[in-house]
Amino acid sequence: MVDAAHGIDVPVTMINQDDAPDGSANPPLAVYRTIGPDCDVTRGLPPLRSGWITGRDDVESYQPRGRDLSDDGRSAVRRGAASQEWKGERRPPLRARAGATVTQMHYARAGVITPEMRYVALREGCDVSLVRDELAAGRAIIPANVNHPEAEPMIIGKAFGVKVNANIGNSAVTSSIADEVDKLRWATRWGADTVMDLSTGDDIHTTREWILRNSPVPIGTVPIYQALEKVDGDHQALTWEIFRDTVIEQCEQGVDYMTIHAGVLLRYVPLTADRVTGIVSRGGSILAGWCLAHHRENFLYEHFDELCEIFARYDVAFSLGDGLRPGCLADADDAAQFAELDTLAELTKRAWEYDVQVMVEGPGHIPFHLVRENVERQQELCDGAPFYTLGPLVTDIAPGYDHITSAIGATEIARYGTAMLCYVTPKEHLGLPDRDDVKTGVITYRIAAHAADVAKGHPGARERDDALSKARFEFRWRDQFGLSLDPQTAESMHDETLPAEPAKTAHFCSMCGPKFCSMRISQDIRDDFGDAAEQRRVAEAGMAAKAAEFRAAGGEVYLPDPVRR
Amino acid sequence: MVDAAHGIDVPVTMINQDDAPDGSANPPLAVYRTIGPDCDVTRGLPPLRSGWITGRDDVESYQPRGRDLSDDGRSAVRRGAASQEWKGERRPPLRARAGATVTQMHYARAGVITPEMRYVALREGCDVSLVRDELAAGRAIIPANVNHPEAEPMIIGKAFGVKVNANIGNSAVTSSIADEVDKLRWATRWGADTVMDLSTGDDIHTTREWILRNSPVPIGTVPIYQALEKVDGDHQALTWEIFRDTVIEQCEQGVDYMTIHAGVLLRYVPLTADRVTGIVSRGGSILAGWCLAHHRENFLYEHFDELCEIFARYDVAFSLGDGLRPGCLADADDAAQFAELDTLAELTKRAWEYDVQVMVEGPGHIPFHLVRENVERQQELCDGAPFYTLGPLVTDIAPGYDHITSAIGATEIARYGTAMLCYVTPKEHLGLPDRDDVKTGVITYRIAAHAADVAKGHPGARERDDALSKARFEFRWRDQFGLSLDPQTAESMHDETLPAEPAKTAHFCSMCGPKFCSMRISQDIRDDFGDAAEQRRVAEAGMAAKAAEFRAAGGEVYLPDPVRR
Repeated sequence: MVDAAHGIDVPVTMINQDDAPDGSANPPLAVYRTIGPDCDVTRGLPPLRSGWITGRDDVESYQPRGRDLSDDGRSAVRRGAASQEWKGERRPPLRARAGATVTQMHYARAGVITPEMRYVALREGCDVSLVRDELAAGRAIIPANVNHPEAEPMIIGKAFGVKVNANIGNSAVTSSIADEVDKLRWATRWGADTVMDLSTGDDIHTTREWILRNSPVPIGTVPIYQALEKVDGDHQALTWEIFRDTVIEQCEQGVDYMTIHAGVLLRYVPLTADRVTGIVSRGGSILAGWCLAHHRENFLYEHFDELCEIFARYDVAFSLGDGLRPGCLADADDAAQFAELDTLAELTKRAWEYDVQVMVEGPGHIPFHLVRENVERQQELCDGAPFYTLGPLVTDIAPGYDHITSAIGATEIARYGTAMLCYVTPKEHLGLPDRDDVKTGVITYRIAAHAADVAKGHPGARERDDALSKARFEFRWRDQFGLSLDPQTAESMHDETLPAEPAKTAHFCSMCGPKFCSMRISQDIRDDFGDAAEQRRVAEAGMAAKAAEFRAAGGEVYLPDPVRR
Repeated sequence: MVDAAHGIDVPVTMINQDDAPDGSANPPLAVYRTIGPDCDVTRGLPPLRSGWITGRDDVESYQPRGRDLSDDGRSAVRRGAASQEWKGERRPPLRARAGATVTQMHYARAGVITPEMRYVALREGCDVSLVRDELAAGRAIIPANVNHPEAEPMIIGKAFGVKVNANIGNSAVTSSIADEVDKLRWATRWGADTVMDLSTGDDIHTTREWILRNSPVPIGTVPIYQALEKVDGDHQALTWEIFRDTVIEQCEQGVDYMTIHAGVLLRYVPLTADRVTGIVSRGGSILAGWCLAHHRENFLYEHFDELCEIFARYDVAFSLGDGLRPGCLADADDAAQFAELDTLAELTKRAWEYDVQVMVEGPGHIPFHLVRENVERQQELCDGAPFYTLGPLVTDIAPGYDHITSAIGATEIARYGTAMLCYVTPKEHLGLPDRDDVKTGVITYRIAAHAADVAKGHPGARERDDALSKARFEFRWRDQFGLSLDPQTAESMHDETLPAEPAKTAHFCSMCGPKFCSMRISQDIRDDFGDAAEQRRVAEAGMAAKAAEFRAAGGEVYLPDPVRR
């Protein structure tokens, strides 16, 4: 899609279709595209937004903070080098000039329409004024760090399509930089709107560099993971200075949003002591331990204004972490969860004072009947700031299938206003997702997001459903595959029983076989008896004869020793 | 579970658990069991209910209708024999003595408490009077043909646990008797509460015999499929006599419930003419074609009273088919669907006049926001007769993942009162499910049914969730696997990254690794800082110091050219 007047060209996926049996054309369908342009991963993507960013004349490039091998963890220090150092272009970091604020929220509040806003308006098929107004009100965000010009702008807010985040990242136990870059590209290929790099293992800095330079979508992180690495995993040794330095390191690399667990207050920690599963957020548990160990308030809460000032200079968005989210149905909607939410609401408004974009993270594990009130409560307390939830899972008894248990809750919570869903893969609670798990997780969440868009009556949401259904009725098998979220899987499942080419145009499938294909029969009915009006004439003729028929039928009744009553 | 007074012993699965780290015991959990006793499939299951049935002294055994090779379809006739003829015991069929009615509804209305009612009361953990009252009111059914004594009684009704049906059956295109018996046992192993044999291919009669003699759960069928085989697939050649004879054939074999599309009225057919996907029910399309071709009313509607009389003699339950259900979101909640529902409500009450048990089938494909009104409308019109729905799918764009698209709708519709969910497998719309698809479909639907039970606050529904969550927090990995719906899959996913034995007791998994395990950290917090009261003391000590700390922290602020405002 093109906005020629402003030189903006938004890539979409066009799905072509064959004509209908009656020869009428089935128009191609344009589908939202998250894949980004193809590129050589060792060079990275072209910096799409560079001109827009510098064109505003409010940023300066500067000498970055001193890079240190400890940024890549102990083994890098041991080796004396980071492994697989990024070889592509290295641009000096940008930040707002002194006194300037470079957030999309700031521009929106000033009434300025940026190219980023025009880009997302084209992507969403809405008026750009809606984009600006939702940004200005804090009801939507465009995560767009000035140091991540490769990313294609996208918007997160309940007035727009429901978005999906995919988590990747290595852990102390497994996986490599190449694996993570591959997972990034794989996740966006299947429809991830943003990706979080949750690496906690070796080469954190360098892995993130590779991911950012190759990512067409916004990248989120949880900086406390890297900060903890820098103190060798001893959370009591964490300090605000180490954390702040890590945040600046990541701002300079181009991270678009960061999870900040500033709502885990010292006085809330005791509220979790009687829980079945305690604190299940990694960041939440680290900070809770820190608070108690030091008899001090959470340093992220105490230094929140400084974080706002930093984020305002790079346009990094807050993802206010729910460090006290419930980890099981039994702990759902408890005092700890809701106390933290009150504090996240307070922090949302403080960030807005700095024109810093904010979304609020949500659970987790919630019984189905309590899901709705979670989003309605957050929306009310946080004045409509975008809600970003993990599922929620609606039962705890299906490890290995938690992409499903959580997609059920995700559809419900998105229907009532959650703006972005963090995917859950089949490996949740069991291990690190591999390539197949990432694909399954993303597609499952695309289903939840789409079902919610349809339920919300989001403009145009049902076009793809209707196109696929029409293709189904017209036995356009290839179009059914092409219009589906996972064409390869749909086609291979079909081919397991009917692999031959003719089957691609057959008026039946192996489910019912030719004789029992209901859709073939209903097509025959239309062929034999015409349209609704003609069918009605036939039916009425039948009615006239009905009474007589009934008597005749009644007369023939035979039963083995019929029971009369 | 045992009702010694009445000599009833209900098998359950006991899940044993290890002790908690503090040495306290975690009691074993008793779980509803659908598997049935082990048996030699060539001999079939023991006739559990025979004594109960004959003990009521209201049935007679008689010479069955003449068996005919055409019952097994054309190829059997060609071969001159049915393949894999059933070799196990052949009992002469039973039916009600003249003037008697042998349905569980009849007994309940007479205030009689049958062993079947006691059996389900034990299974459901409720008072037997609730079972009797719900049966008498028509709000629940116990599908229990007097000729299927092998089946363990189970109940379908919204006052009880949500049930799951699995469809099996061969088609003209594929599969064998052995495959279907294997699928039956496989489906019940994973938790199918009933199974429908939807065979449309060869050896229909014999396949059904093998299935019934080996089924510990009620078996449902769609008799019109076999009737159509008997007229060589020419639906215009169908007659009431052929259909009735097929129904009696299946009553004598022991089918527990039958889908009867008696609501597809001649005058409703034109209402489907402008649909995107027309009529997607096989039975519905067959009858619609028949009605128009003959200018006559649906013979199932015209002969409905005779069907009631037959069903009353064997205790076969109606599953009133929704032959005009929508086949896509675009056709949901249209005039054809709701016109048929009005007729199904009328037929429900007619069946009740004969004390015949009834459930009503429902959609299909429904956008998420319209799901609730579908069940509420059915419950109101049908005076609470059990609703039995297929999904519904909440989007049409994910062939290959329709177990998920439909489980989302299934959870919602069950939450508001649907009594049984018909599973959908990943192969829906694409091909016939294989063994893995059956397992995936059943487990996915157990998730939906369980999530709905929890949402409904069904007594005891959350015990398993809470037990698994406690096992998770206590790092009892083996118990987490054992308590899950699919222990093998959970364990193998865990072992992919941490196969070693010690990992089964490790206080972390590969997701976060040791350093980042939030639950380990929150356990450490409890170890270091004690219970809620002690933690509160620590926190308050921290509060006292807070003001000073804050000033100190404020004084230390350093930012690269901080922005002040």
